[in-house]
Amino acid sequence: MHRTKVRIVEGVLDANDTIARANRADFDDAGVTVVNLMSAPGAGKTSLLERTVRNLEGIRIGVLEGDVQGSLDADRLASLHVPVTQINTDPGFGGECHLDANMVRSAIPSIPLEELDLLVIENVGNLVCPAEFRVGEHHRVMISSVTEGEDKPLKYPLMFRACELVLVNKIDLVPHLDFDLGKLLANVEAVHPGMPTALVSARTGEGVEEWRRWLVQAVGRVAQPA
Amino acid sequence: MHRTKVRIVEGVLDANDTIARANRADFDDAGVTVVNLMSAPGAGKTSLLERTVRNLEGIRIGVLEGDVQGSLDADRLASLHVPVTQINTDPGFGGECHLDANMVRSAIPSIPLEELDLLVIENVGNLVCPAEFRVGEHHRVMISSVTEGEDKPLKYPLMFRACELVLVNKIDLVPHLDFDLGKLLANVEAVHPGMPTALVSARTGEGVEEWRRWLVQAVGRVAQPA
Repeated sequence: MHRTKVRIVEGVLDANDTIARANRADFDDAGVTVVNLMSAPGAGKTSLLERTVRNLEGIRIGVLEGDVQGSLDADRLASLHVPVTQINTDPGFGGECHLDANMVRSAIPSIPLEELDLLVIENVGNLVCPAEFRVGEHHRVMISSVTEGEDKPLKYPLMFRACELVLVNKIDLVPHLDFDLGKLLANVEAVHPGMPTALVSARTGEGVEEWRRWLVQAVGRVAQPA
Repeated sequence: MHRTKVRIVEGVLDANDTIARANRADFDDAGVTVVNLMSAPGAGKTSLLERTVRNLEGIRIGVLEGDVQGSLDADRLASLHVPVTQINTDPGFGGECHLDANMVRSAIPSIPLEELDLLVIENVGNLVCPAEFRVGEHHRVMISSVTEGEDKPLKYPLMFRACELVLVNKIDLVPHLDFDLGKLLANVEAVHPGMPTALVSARTGEGVEEWRRWLVQAVGRVAQPA
């Protein structure tokens, strides 16, 4: 029973990886760098993107929004004149708690790839399953909000291991919390040694320039189309 | 393909409900009231329980801890001399993002039901899947932290509909946020008309007495064993 379940899960993830590779090929052909942005609900993915989309040194950014239901985040970003495509994960089910490669594949025809240099995929707010499903991205970045406490790397290690950058958001709230930033960073280091972190506040703008520079460099690192 | 997936999911949920009913029967036989406590990661489930377990008017409380990995929360509660049983959802998989009835069933032999009046099940931090899986509980309660923003009821409506009480936690942080409490409460009302809410702060203790009274009454409402 247990072995069977493991085999089924492995099969699902294998099938997902095959579709993710096809997505990646499409993104590479179009010369678009893709960042999969993940976090718990309410950690500030959309707020940080609202801060980020301006002054990107001429880089043309688009967003693919993953939500169980609704288009609240997409509407917020569209109001900043960013091309936004919405995926809702709820049809035919109680709602998927993550994006998978097939959902992104279905959305690709609606994304104006030829007009973009950078596509940020805002995943469903969840620290578990999004880390298990590659969607064809080049980079995986997560946000960990200081209000979530210091222990999240130890409780959700796969997410912290799957990403290559942790944005520690809501840093402006630290004076109002019983929160030890050194302990959070030590826990990040414990589960993913050497992982870069950046302290940011989507509210005050602190650290956003560093994150913007990271994105600009990420676009530079991906080969442009022939 | 789509129909097949829906049928498989319905089958999984049907099987889950069957096991949940068996759990419920065991809880009823033991005269234990069971509350399934759900929230996003870092919303303060454990911190609130730490505040709650004292002064429960003689009610004997135990906790069943659901985590992907580790026993950090269980250790915190055990240090308060509360009987705690740990479920880890990660064996044989990348980690389940929710508790299901079968996981709880496997844990029941380790729970000292005869010594308890109230069992709080602290679910995995996630606003999607925990709402889909009943585990045999009598009551479902969720925590929505003010730091998560006002829009969560609209983005995760199933969770807000599945519960019968919303604890709005971290209320002490409102002065430091761009947050409209009235808007959050209106969004709760929009997706689940009439749903009771309580403002609490696990940090300052504000509102915890009201939550404690709710638990005491919940224990009173469930019939005691013959």
